[in-house]
Amino acid sequence: MSETAADIPALMTRLGRAARAAAPVLAAATTAQKNTALVAAAQAMRARSDTILAANEEDMTRARAKGLNAAMVDRLRLDSTRVEAMARGLDDIAALPDPVGSVAAAWRRPNGLEFERVRVPLGVVGIIYESRPNVTADAGALCLKAGNPVILRGGSESGASNRAIHAVLVAGLETAGLPREAIQLVPTADRDAVGYMLASMREYIDVLVPRGGKALVARVQAEARVPVIGHLEGVCHVYVDRDADPDMAREIVHNAKLRRTGVCGAAETLLVDRGGLALLAPIVRDLLDAGCEVRGDATTGAVDPRVRPATEEDWATEYLDAVIAVRVVDGVDAAIAHIARYGSSHTEAIVTANSATAERFLARVDSAIVLHNASTQFADGGEFGMGAEIGISTDRFHARGPVGVEQLTSYKYVVRGAGQTRR
Amino acid sequence: MSETAADIPALMTRLGRAARAAAPVLAAATTAQKNTALVAAAQAMRARSDTILAANEEDMTRARAKGLNAAMVDRLRLDSTRVEAMARGLDDIAALPDPVGSVAAAWRRPNGLEFERVRVPLGVVGIIYESRPNVTADAGALCLKAGNPVILRGGSESGASNRAIHAVLVAGLETAGLPREAIQLVPTADRDAVGYMLASMREYIDVLVPRGGKALVARVQAEARVPVIGHLEGVCHVYVDRDADPDMAREIVHNAKLRRTGVCGAAETLLVDRGGLALLAPIVRDLLDAGCEVRGDATTGAVDPRVRPATEEDWATEYLDAVIAVRVVDGVDAAIAHIARYGSSHTEAIVTANSATAERFLARVDSAIVLHNASTQFADGGEFGMGAEIGISTDRFHARGPVGVEQLTSYKYVVRGAGQTRR
Repeated sequence: MSETAADIPALMTRLGRAARAAAPVLAAATTAQKNTALVAAAQAMRARSDTILAANEEDMTRARAKGLNAAMVDRLRLDSTRVEAMARGLDDIAALPDPVGSVAAAWRRPNGLEFERVRVPLGVVGIIYESRPNVTADAGALCLKAGNPVILRGGSESGASNRAIHAVLVAGLETAGLPREAIQLVPTADRDAVGYMLASMREYIDVLVPRGGKALVARVQAEARVPVIGHLEGVCHVYVDRDADPDMAREIVHNAKLRRTGVCGAAETLLVDRGGLALLAPIVRDLLDAGCEVRGDATTGAVDPRVRPATEEDWATEYLDAVIAVRVVDGVDAAIAHIARYGSSHTEAIVTANSATAERFLARVDSAIVLHNASTQFADGGEFGMGAEIGISTDRFHARGPVGVEQLTSYKYVVRGAGQTRR
Repeated sequence: MSETAADIPALMTRLGRAARAAAPVLAAATTAQKNTALVAAAQAMRARSDTILAANEEDMTRARAKGLNAAMVDRLRLDSTRVEAMARGLDDIAALPDPVGSVAAAWRRPNGLEFERVRVPLGVVGIIYESRPNVTADAGALCLKAGNPVILRGGSESGASNRAIHAVLVAGLETAGLPREAIQLVPTADRDAVGYMLASMREYIDVLVPRGGKALVARVQAEARVPVIGHLEGVCHVYVDRDADPDMAREIVHNAKLRRTGVCGAAETLLVDRGGLALLAPIVRDLLDAGCEVRGDATTGAVDPRVRPATEEDWATEYLDAVIAVRVVDGVDAAIAHIARYGSSHTEAIVTANSATAERFLARVDSAIVLHNASTQFADGGEFGMGAEIGISTDRFHARGPVGVEQLTSYKYVVRGAGQTRR
């Protein structure tokens, strides 16, 4: 399946041209056609579950031989439950409303011109991701629903799994009479293909979405010459204010940190108001008792001997693990300042019964998602009611927060007149 | 006022840091404060009209000495009418609704969480423009209204005019108690400053808006490492269908081409349906009689001896002058195909009394603005009811079509709960 490095420009140009050619066909596809493709792909995925699992076993064998670490092997691993979850994901995306053609706004001007702002596909999307093979299904399906041809470049470790999953998506497209070039998988593990997508495909790719760890994101930021929807780290904060309900504060912090530690909406830093210092000990002990490592400032360290001292680096770290940094701050404004300095503008929560304090925090914290009296783990397109998402954007441009089908669209203005000319 | 080339990184970093520092202050500024600054700037502009005109005279003298062409000198020239128009523009922007803080959507989830999508400023904006000094006032004011600090980099020809206009904007900011760093003008004509803005200010500039001719746009496309709102050329089309009303067709084509020829929404190509060939001659003769040069295909050439033959290059040319390319096509689908091949995805119009044909054109032409029975010269934020704009974006990403205050914002999600944790 792989081509030599010298062929990369020719190969990628071929993929790019095919995607560009598929764009008008996909833009004109009906909702029924797109949903038929998605449901047929889900059926094919269930029917070919054994083939997908066998392909995944190939990848796993290669990964073990290479000595990949346990976390990477787990991200790579599929089983029948995970295949069924992917198939259900396809059905769920079929059930979402079709954004394409929906009228986002309509108005009439005094001269009688009727204006509509109509959603249209964003264009050709490039997705660069790492070892999770489910991204092939999720990202392919979301782009299809939004009417965008997609070029998928998965990690080399999951090559066989990705090809097997891609084959069921193509089967779905063919059932619906849609071009198979609507969802293309880069057929080489050559890393130059990524460089080419980033730097040399402006003509063919309208937007790139990187999904992966810091090294990938850093590479994309350094090399991309195509617009990017970025998904940077989530150094998420919970601020417990002096006016917080103690039980609510403890439950929210526990959930925000420990429900799942590996997600971008997991809390990484707890800030506690010095004016509510009695709140600190029960929260910290609850975390420690649950097996969470606590790295705290001096005041926090005095609470329990299990607390380790925090360093400057801890305030800016996304642990993605059962570790939390804890700091006592002088009220809501100090919390806002700490977040502005160390945060990643992803998701932050305040716990307080004082609505004026809450509104100050919600207005002044400049993050994609700000919450009052709720867990940061709600940072998820599904929890927002948006359906599946491709990630949480920490960019300010185009899409911020969960990136679902609607965020994968652009718009155009349709103007209807009766012969109006401009003075 | 100018610094040496070696100082560019230090100078630009200083401007970038000052803009970044002004961002939270401007984001928290009230509507009243921003409007006070705009109205005070308008007053200062009227009061200092003589100073501005004297500065402009300096620029004009230098331009004439350099032998700049008449069109460039006209773009550079200010007079009391143009100064008053700039002042009125500031008042108009003050009168626009403030997008910041407005709730674009609100919903409630079954678990009781209340979601709001709230508009927030986009961030620090960089504007790179050429000789028109009014851009200093327009762009500065639009960015201020949207809560964005702006770094303005005008053309060297208009340096003295820009400094005089910038001074009245700063006077407005000071009257309102807002930081003067909210609107900064790059104080050097060194072209390296542009390169530095494009490639090295990711940390300080959230979005760049180039305003100028093809050479500038090409440079920005080649060098930018910061998100860009692009304003490419408008190769705009009018398609006259077989079912068009003859008088309406003639009037719309005349207006679309000749009302103002130097604007991006001016029609550059006329497509006439072979099935409505009787419509061709009156339209072409009307244009010729009005002094417009017509470059046509063979069928068009047979209409009138004044028609010159069109070349392949004509179909892709933005004349910005009293010149039009005319081609006869086989119906609406051929018109759509011609536009897909040669157009710039800016603005296209169809003239027809057949609503099915119109809807097909409106749906299938992939341009920022598509019109039915109306002139392409309505491609303008003011005509859309959006107020002032910074240009018409031909990008698909973030902003498409007129870029006004709303398009200069981003959003965040505000979530209010009562202690919800995630299962």
